[in-house]
Amino acid sequence: MKPIRIRGEPATYPLICAPLVGAGRDLLRAEAAAALAARADIVEWRVDHFRDIANLRSVIETGRALRRAAPGVPLLFTRRSVAEGGQPVPLGEGEIVALYEAVCAEGIAELVDFEMASSAASMAAVRDASRRHGVGLVCSFHDFGRTPPLAELTARFRRAAELGGDVAKVSVMARGPEDALTLLAALQSSRELAPALIGVSMGPHGALSRIAGFLFGSALTFGVAAAGSAPGQMPIGELRAAIELLRG
Amino acid sequence: MKPIRIRGEPATYPLICAPLVGAGRDLLRAEAAAALAARADIVEWRVDHFRDIANLRSVIETGRALRRAAPGVPLLFTRRSVAEGGQPVPLGEGEIVALYEAVCAEGIAELVDFEMASSAASMAAVRDASRRHGVGLVCSFHDFGRTPPLAELTARFRRAAELGGDVAKVSVMARGPEDALTLLAALQSSRELAPALIGVSMGPHGALSRIAGFLFGSALTFGVAAAGSAPGQMPIGELRAAIELLRG
Repeated sequence: MKPIRIRGEPATYPLICAPLVGAGRDLLRAEAAAALAARADIVEWRVDHFRDIANLRSVIETGRALRRAAPGVPLLFTRRSVAEGGQPVPLGEGEIVALYEAVCAEGIAELVDFEMASSAASMAAVRDASRRHGVGLVCSFHDFGRTPPLAELTARFRRAAELGGDVAKVSVMARGPEDALTLLAALQSSRELAPALIGVSMGPHGALSRIAGFLFGSALTFGVAAAGSAPGQMPIGELRAAIELLRG
Repeated sequence: MKPIRIRGEPATYPLICAPLVGAGRDLLRAEAAAALAARADIVEWRVDHFRDIANLRSVIETGRALRRAAPGVPLLFTRRSVAEGGQPVPLGEGEIVALYEAVCAEGIAELVDFEMASSAASMAAVRDASRRHGVGLVCSFHDFGRTPPLAELTARFRRAAELGGDVAKVSVMARGPEDALTLLAALQSSRELAPALIGVSMGPHGALSRIAGFLFGSALTFGVAAAGSAPGQMPIGELRAAIELLRG
């Protein structure tokens, strides 16, 4: 089992991550406090939901406010594109890269998630900034429509490794129970790769992956404290109990 | 999802089954009471653990005592062979068939489990007796050493159907996480068969199958009230909570 490293140190395996999807700072602070109360191991700030995303100073200040609201809880900073299930934002790719660079430089995130479908130049810039500031890079792929075949899923994990990701994330929609098995099998056959892995099978048919993914190498699972960010996420307390049951 | 039928009626899906493995009547009664308290949906009397198995009257009277100890809880009557993980018993195959015939005739069991590796004549006799008395037949296969390949597992489910089983059971040991996926995939591709299915991936690596098997067609899962009967079984309360979490 390969844990995610945070500031160089191996973290809990698996991490239970609460998404923060508020549009404004007050709501986000409340979500962070709920995540802390639910004993989330990490929070993911989905900044594409943040209405002030185009105001760099507001993003940085809000990031600092989140750290104060959930002291000691690491933060994963993520702008999800519309193509991969996120909200539309009024920023071009260059501005998004500049945002990631500032977030890395300002020390408000332990990890950043950047999509592998980004341009090579953008990926290289984010990889460079994150490495320079000791921030881990999650290199991600999402498909909210379907589960691609096994070979395609393993190719996505491999691609994240080639791009220098510290963590390779693949999250795809399950349209039937067999899709969850395909995602788990893709995790299992990607365990020899250098990065830590995150694999999610979304939707009701994929729920199994959220509690059992860690058995196949998935180092992080998303659970709900205040509000979810993707179909199939479960309340953190029940998620943790099921993981402990499987851990035996 | 195909539920197991009990006295002709579709039962809860999935059934949570507590094994009874006491060697004597008092211990068995206590186990049955614990199963009732844990709200098991059904109990399995593993009669190969019963020290008086060679005394037909004692078996029947003990069966009646178990029904009184857990009123309203259906009973699955099972003699497991040594070859498939059971205890040695001082009975030949003919005596075992006679035991099953008596159990069916006396109305102490809603279901009986008989191994598909038995001789054709024995299987036919048990199938005949169970059908005549309205008792469901679980036709089973176990491998405590390994998980055979997918094609072999699906062949076992098919064989149970060919032998006239009302329920086809395959329970095999997981030696790694991928074995649990193989068992779940075998369930998934056997769902078109006539019988209801039970699929178990035993041991720590198979624990996942005990909570998620129902998503792939497994109509019964074993959980511990007082004492387990196979590696990987979990306490019934936690098992039920995890199933409800996955059911969403």
